[in-house]
Amino acid sequence: MKKAKILIRKGKKQFIEDLDREVTTVKEKRFYIGDLSRDFSTQYGTIKKADLKKTGTVRSSQNKDFSIFDASFIDHYKRMKRLPQIIPLKDIGFIIAKTGIGPESVVVEGGTGSGALAIMLARLCKKVYSYEIEKKHLEVAEQNIKELGIKNITIKNKSMYDKIDEKNADLICLDLPAPWKALDNVKKALKTGGFIVSYSPTIVQTADFVNALTEMPEFLHLSTVEVIERQWEVEKRKVRPRSKTIIHSGFLTVGRKI
Amino acid sequence: MKKAKILIRKGKKQFIEDLDREVTTVKEKRFYIGDLSRDFSTQYGTIKKADLKKTGTVRSSQNKDFSIFDASFIDHYKRMKRLPQIIPLKDIGFIIAKTGIGPESVVVEGGTGSGALAIMLARLCKKVYSYEIEKKHLEVAEQNIKELGIKNITIKNKSMYDKIDEKNADLICLDLPAPWKALDNVKKALKTGGFIVSYSPTIVQTADFVNALTEMPEFLHLSTVEVIERQWEVEKRKVRPRSKTIIHSGFLTVGRKI
Amino acid sequence: MKKAKILIRKGKKQFIEDLDREVTTVKEKRFYIGDLSRDFSTQYGTIKKADLKKTGTVRSSQNKDFSIFDASFIDHYKRMKRLPQIIPLKDIGFIIAKTGIGPESVVVEGGTGSGALAIMLARLCKKVYSYEIEKKHLEVAEQNIKELGIKNITIKNKSMYDKIDEKNADLICLDLPAPWKALDNVKKALKTGGFIVSYSPTIVQTADFVNALTEMPEFLHLSTVEVIERQWEVEKRKVRPRSKTIIHSGFLTVGRKI
Amino acid sequence: MKKAKILIRKGKKQFIEDLDREVTTVKEKRFYIGDLSRDFSTQYGTIKKADLKKTGTVRSSQNKDFSIFDASFIDHYKRMKRLPQIIPLKDIGFIIAKTGIGPESVVVEGGTGSGALAIMLARLCKKVYSYEIEKKHLEVAEQNIKELGIKNITIKNKSMYDKIDEKNADLICLDLPAPWKALDNVKKALKTGGFIVSYSPTIVQTADFVNALTEMPEFLHLSTVEVIERQWEVEKRKVRPRSKTIIHSGFLTVGRKI
Repeated sequence: MKKAKILIRKGKKQFIEDLDREVTTVKEKRFYIGDLSRDFSTQYGTIKKADLKKTGTVRSSQNKDFSIFDASFIDHYKRMKRLPQIIPLKDIGFIIAKTGIGPESVVVEGGTGSGALAIMLARLCKKVYSYEIEKKHLEVAEQNIKELGIKNITIKNKSMYDKIDEKNADLICLDLPAPWKALDNVKKALKTGGFIVSYSPTIVQTADFVNALTEMPEFLHLSTVEVIERQWEVEKRKVRPRSKTIIHSGFLTVGRKI
Repeated sequence: MKKAKILIRKGKKQFIEDLDREVTTVKEKRFYIGDLSRDFSTQYGTIKKADLKKTGTVRSSQNKDFSIFDASFIDHYKRMKRLPQIIPLKDIGFIIAKTGIGPESVVVEGGTGSGALAIMLARLCKKVYSYEIEKKHLEVAEQNIKELGIKNITIKNKSMYDKIDEKNADLICLDLPAPWKALDNVKKALKTGGFIVSYSPTIVQTADFVNALTEMPEFLHLSTVEVIERQWEVEKRKVRPRSKTIIHSGFLTVGRKI
Repeated sequence: MKKAKILIRKGKKQFIEDLDREVTTVKEKRFYIGDLSRDFSTQYGTIKKADLKKTGTVRSSQNKDFSIFDASFIDHYKRMKRLPQIIPLKDIGFIIAKTGIGPESVVVEGGTGSGALAIMLARLCKKVYSYEIEKKHLEVAEQNIKELGIKNITIKNKSMYDKIDEKNADLICLDLPAPWKALDNVKKALKTGGFIVSYSPTIVQTADFVNALTEMPEFLHLSTVEVIERQWEVEKRKVRPRSKTIIHSGFLTVGRKI
Repeated sequence: MKKAKILIRKGKKQFIEDLDREVTTVKEKRFYIGDLSRDFSTQYGTIKKADLKKTGTVRSSQNKDFSIFDASFIDHYKRMKRLPQIIPLKDIGFIIAKTGIGPESVVVEGGTGSGALAIMLARLCKKVYSYEIEKKHLEVAEQNIKELGIKNITIKNKSMYDKIDEKNADLICLDLPAPWKALDNVKKALKTGGFIVSYSPTIVQTADFVNALTEMPEFLHLSTVEVIERQWEVEKRKVRPRSKTIIHSGFLTVGRKI
């Protein structure tokens, strides 16, 4: 993982008597500093190159205080180049927790897309094999994997519909337009007791997949869910669900090879 | 992790012409076999001790086929002794994914409770320190940790309200009745850029915590959410959200030390 | 509407010092008294016939206080005989509000089922025509309509798939297994600008209906929604969504004839 | 209700082979024509005054077909002038259905705001009394009531915190910043068995109200809910919840005087 810094200027609110309410007087600002070899400029002044090595509080040329610290994995992750329809973190977390994968697990997934799921899984597992047919996606994914310094992903420019080379996988994740077409291959590649997870944005794809899965004696359908991340606003007594938020990404189906 | 086996008899459905619908003729059965040193009996006949070593299909004394395979981490996890109000997997997954913790991370958490969160985090991180004041809970947690063969958790019979011994933690998780009382200690124990996550069943506790957090210049409030796991039924054309499911566990607040 | 009374004994909670929490010491009790011509007995004593005519507080033979008042429409409604899969009030309210029907509106609906939707619509509209093919359902609906004293519903033992006799309806509601089969008839029976609403428990029926509706130039598809009634517990500082509630009834599609 | 017309040009989608997908080639357009005494111009040509009297299909000066019909109540309703935080139709429908109010009901409500709730209730009930302290709101409400031709609303420039003049109301609706301050007055104005409904955007207001309500022996707390209208997209096989929608308006508490 490449060295980078996060620089934050915290927002401020102030009570304005004439308005009888709090007003944001300083907007929160967040900067990702990828190049630590020279001064970094913001609208609130410049941070000296020497200060970029610090952790804690630094002061800009305009005498404004900032917090600075090493970018962590998730900071780098959020900087990744994204293709449309990236699987959100809430769904990735669900897959990790529900299947219980860990440092000894071997995972196969496809399509790679921008590599987001592969990267998160690779961080926590032994090895990830990822299938992708689109060359353009491959390039994006490879660049992202390199930037995040992940070493245990092997990407294959192949379709899971045709063949899955691996055997005895602990988990196979499908983010494919027709996941049911991969089931015969998944069956051979997964170890007995291994998990299959499919992610689809629409319910019709999901239903077709589940109906195909339940027809096959080698699989157990465990559950099909939507994971909804409902955001709340909390500000003194103003406590309420955010009125407009992204409320749908996709449906997740979890099964098991028996 | 202790050696155990999962034994599954898949359910069967059959179309009954007179009823004009499918009926479950064989109910699905799942067994956890913790003792592999002797024959295992079920209502569908006995599985011989020798067969318990196999993976794949085994036949019982009543000539019924079962699938058998090694219990994985999640199978053991689900067997854990549980105290009331255990944090569900969907919320644990959310914490893991949103904070991006991994093999180099040091985590502090409390209260330990039955140890569920500590165990999941310890599986994926370098080290977990867990605080618990109730001796009875400690005993349950210690037994669970031992059963799951986790080595990198240190449990402390202390309150996070009094002191957090660690420094430079990457993540501190609070599952406490008054999490705001731990904030001063969290501030000192967390590294700059580290994450704080608090889990509370009620919105009033959550709001009190967020309001305390946003008052402190050392913290950034990132988000407060409910993670809702909405289960769906899929059976041929019968595709619908399950009509009655557990729809609430708790609220999660994520912040960061700056 | 038949004369009836509601009798309520309010529950009580008491703080028990030894337990350090509130305990329900008297359970809330609610009685519907359909026969006002004789004394009414409860486990807390008998209410005298003379007292059944009162409104306010009455005292039982065991010296317990009760609240008594005239049953209102909704009290009678909730006593109705119900067939499976009755449309819930939250969905009925949605139909009423979104279509803006009122005292001058003529509504056609089917299937009648237990008559719940017909009754609620008839209460607020000029006239309701309701189609039902099942004789057994008809009998239940007719009894319910009679009990609630509704005069402006005409029930027909016919299928909307075959023919809708009415013309210029303001609203047509479908609660049918294959609502798309009624669309040609709906088209003729609805006035230009009139609303069509279809209620289906599964998403596959819903999608088939919407896809058929959007194919027809005479209809505009306005929206397809789930109305979710999320219940909250509020008790001092214990404020949280109820953990287990009915979270799905059906999908509602609203269209308009143009 | 003033005479007006709705004019609709239906959208069109076309399959474009080169893109391999459907594209909206004609956008749907909807016009409210309040003045029927002269020609009406659109970007697709002019509709002649004589044609504005028709119902069905009319053709513009550019030879484009439109559907035309009388504006119904809900069309007028949606044209109303709106103040911030108007209560949405889904919540109004919930109140109507859950309390079972109808043609014989007398309702008291406040604050009037833009009059939306008063208007919907007045359409279905015998009489609505509405309280509002803000003169500016009163003016908006009065104009809306006049435009919709509603005769059975009496607006009062008074606070429900001070006094409620009415007695024996069937339903009292509160949309007030501190609804608990009105409870003593509500108690006197409501008939025994009558309903109280309070609508608040935040959970803290809601909890304070419920806690005050449950303290009073004259009230029964029936339920506190959020009504969530979850919108779905349906387009051939693309069937999924809309990814970003308004997901919160307010919390509704229903109680009853006993």
